[in-house]
Amino acid sequence: MTRPIRLNAFNMATPGSQASSLWGYPGNEVGRYNTLAYWKEMCAILERGLFDGLFLADVIGVYDTYGGTPDAALRHAVSLPILDPVPMLPALADATTHLGFGVTCTLTYEPPHVFARRMSTLDHLTGGRIGWNIVTGFLQSTGRAATGQAGFVDHSRRYDMAEEFMEVVYRLWEGSWEDDAACRDRARGCFADPARVRKVSFSGEFFGLDTIHLCEPSPQRTPTLFQAGASGRGRAFAGKHAEGIFVAGPSRKVIAEQMRQIRAEAVRAGRAAGDIVAYALATAIVAGTEREAWALYDDYRRHVDPVAGLAHLSGLMGIDLAQYGMDEVLTHIDTNAMRSAVDSFTSADPDRRWTIRELGEHQSLGGRGPVFVGTAAQVADRMQEWMEATDIDGFNLAYVVAHRTYRDVVDLLVPELQRRGAYPTAYAPGTLRAKLSGTGRDRLAPPHPGARFRYGAAV
Amino acid sequence: MTRPIRLNAFNMATPGSQASSLWGYPGNEVGRYNTLAYWKEMCAILERGLFDGLFLADVIGVYDTYGGTPDAALRHAVSLPILDPVPMLPALADATTHLGFGVTCTLTYEPPHVFARRMSTLDHLTGGRIGWNIVTGFLQSTGRAATGQAGFVDHSRRYDMAEEFMEVVYRLWEGSWEDDAACRDRARGCFADPARVRKVSFSGEFFGLDTIHLCEPSPQRTPTLFQAGASGRGRAFAGKHAEGIFVAGPSRKVIAEQMRQIRAEAVRAGRAAGDIVAYALATAIVAGTEREAWALYDDYRRHVDPVAGLAHLSGLMGIDLAQYGMDEVLTHIDTNAMRSAVDSFTSADPDRRWTIRELGEHQSLGGRGPVFVGTAAQVADRMQEWMEATDIDGFNLAYVVAHRTYRDVVDLLVPELQRRGAYPTAYAPGTLRAKLSGTGRDRLAPPHPGARFRYGAAV
Repeated sequence: MTRPIRLNAFNMATPGSQASSLWGYPGNEVGRYNTLAYWKEMCAILERGLFDGLFLADVIGVYDTYGGTPDAALRHAVSLPILDPVPMLPALADATTHLGFGVTCTLTYEPPHVFARRMSTLDHLTGGRIGWNIVTGFLQSTGRAATGQAGFVDHSRRYDMAEEFMEVVYRLWEGSWEDDAACRDRARGCFADPARVRKVSFSGEFFGLDTIHLCEPSPQRTPTLFQAGASGRGRAFAGKHAEGIFVAGPSRKVIAEQMRQIRAEAVRAGRAAGDIVAYALATAIVAGTEREAWALYDDYRRHVDPVAGLAHLSGLMGIDLAQYGMDEVLTHIDTNAMRSAVDSFTSADPDRRWTIRELGEHQSLGGRGPVFVGTAAQVADRMQEWMEATDIDGFNLAYVVAHRTYRDVVDLLVPELQRRGAYPTAYAPGTLRAKLSGTGRDRLAPPHPGARFRYGAAV
Repeated sequence: MTRPIRLNAFNMATPGSQASSLWGYPGNEVGRYNTLAYWKEMCAILERGLFDGLFLADVIGVYDTYGGTPDAALRHAVSLPILDPVPMLPALADATTHLGFGVTCTLTYEPPHVFARRMSTLDHLTGGRIGWNIVTGFLQSTGRAATGQAGFVDHSRRYDMAEEFMEVVYRLWEGSWEDDAACRDRARGCFADPARVRKVSFSGEFFGLDTIHLCEPSPQRTPTLFQAGASGRGRAFAGKHAEGIFVAGPSRKVIAEQMRQIRAEAVRAGRAAGDIVAYALATAIVAGTEREAWALYDDYRRHVDPVAGLAHLSGLMGIDLAQYGMDEVLTHIDTNAMRSAVDSFTSADPDRRWTIRELGEHQSLGGRGPVFVGTAAQVADRMQEWMEATDIDGFNLAYVVAHRTYRDVVDLLVPELQRRGAYPTAYAPGTLRAKLSGTGRDRLAPPHPGARFRYGAAV
């Protein structure tokens, strides 16, 4: 049987999420990112194409490592300017019926009970279509902006903190209210039954809490949990908590290895390998003919500015790539830090000699994921090869030009995949969790660690 | 000339904002507070009635002082359950054209640059229709939930902190980007011009910051600023920063005195007394005949549970009123704390002897504001008397039953006020600030202290 491919849209509330230097490409609508009309147009396309969801990455900070200034990020719109993605989501859910919404929220900025209320609000207002991509914060500038000085909690401690944060929000979402506690019982004069609501009292290393959850139970309670951490600790965290993951790599081999490790972590955490839905970052440039598709690709390449990609990479790596000449070859810049940082590129083709310019261009179009170029049939072939070789469940599709990239995918690629029996022809019913995990599964269920904290469960 | 009356809707993302024990009253829709459909219905009514805005109060905590438990708050929906109001607003703005949106955000929970981005996002997505009600946090339980222990920053220190917070967010909103810095200049390949964006570097007693603002300029930059503080420090803060204020008191005399003090504070801060638009809390029960209106009022009174009001008051005052008998008379409970706490009720009629039950009933229907009952003409008379006697600009109208209370105001009272030339017949154009302060005034202007931090201004 053909394995069905899931599609998700990878985005960010900024004019420059992936192909940032193409904001000015003819016909690109991305400069309207600060209007709801822009996002509603995009969501209509995605829902027509039966995408699982619109995923909004986020970063509360500036890519200012390159040259030590935010200049390149500003000029090329490298994740800047950027809006808070959270307030957009109920409006977008209101304009759609099935599309899910994933949102990145960094857990370092606010107390867990305040954050828990925000997510419950989203889950109520979207009718259970909300996912949370758990991030512990990575840009140097995010720490600096908050404290006025450099440095922030180190990597490993951040995961200790994240573990504790998760326990607290599970307790609030799952354990504070019994299912029908907000009974609206007019006869008894009881909006919510105090006997079925209980305080969460918690005193940990990082967080303390002594309150009931402020929201009545929402359709999913805990939002569907996503994660994208690629480090060892990140993978272990994902194996334990994530219901969906975002992976990124340039080749099937790289992704297959990531998937092997993450599925193993799920099993190590007592879950099934298949309990995690994995989307691999990819870009699809689809057109009516192969020639048209490659002409489009070449034109995009001509418009790309490598500095945009280098500014992005410098921020991700914490290394200022402006210190190297554009034509310097990576093998000549042979520090361990660089090797490890660009591994995700170079490992796909270890013999290729990359220049700094090529690295920037590559990052500026497709980023760490593959770029599939061709007719619908050709791109479908490539995707099916990836599915077979990597154990992923589908793709997290970046766009190059809004709304063209997604429109071409929906109009050309999706019907081709459907003809092959490799893509759904209708949405599954229910919440985002039910759509990903199976009909009726609106709530976290054992062996997921969050299910331990359900109201009435023996913790 | 007749002084025009402004109307604003006082609300909260909960089934129980003011008349909480009436959530179960026949036909009350408020149990649907956790759906966007409910709020869109309300906003359509308000916009039809040319209300300035929907104001959403907020409290991140539980009214659990009464009896030392959240039981009464749960049963009577006393500000509980409660959603985060912020994510609702873009959806509601999208469903309306002119209606403004005020939202309470407590400034104790997150770093200023994160908060500043959230407000800029709202201002972008609502097209400049956002107002921020500045609150420094008041419920004991808000502090306890956050820290796992009792106690939080004391009152006066909180205002020091608020002053510093304001300076930081003014710098971000007003001073980081020049007006047309996000020029989207395709010819120069420049989404934003780095020469016209500058870092905000600030190191204060409470907050440190070293970043550019993450958002390009929104229509209002700084959201329209509201405040409701009634203490001496609160009034001084309002006099300096507020463009709109919410006052609450049971009589014209009480409100007139509050207005005198607040307008004097504005003048003391170098502003004009009229620079602040003041709305007084009120409830209007309007019907076709006087008899019908009073029948409705009596029926509401029969449904009120005094415990709801007492739970609310106990939280506001920090005194557990459950320790007194329902029929005990206030003059017998003669502590200074009590006297001061209930002053806002008793000062309207110093000779009246209030029982605890009456206090609770009073709070449960109308709260600290007057209840106007009658035909449209009668209620209009009362409102005009208040306008003349108090120097307010209009009313912050609470509802008793959703959507009936606002619908009756819009269908019956508004046309009556319009006939008298005491109410607008169309919305003024522009942002919320322009609607309140005068056409074209989309931005803060001197002598408002925020205008000092404008890009290019000599600070």
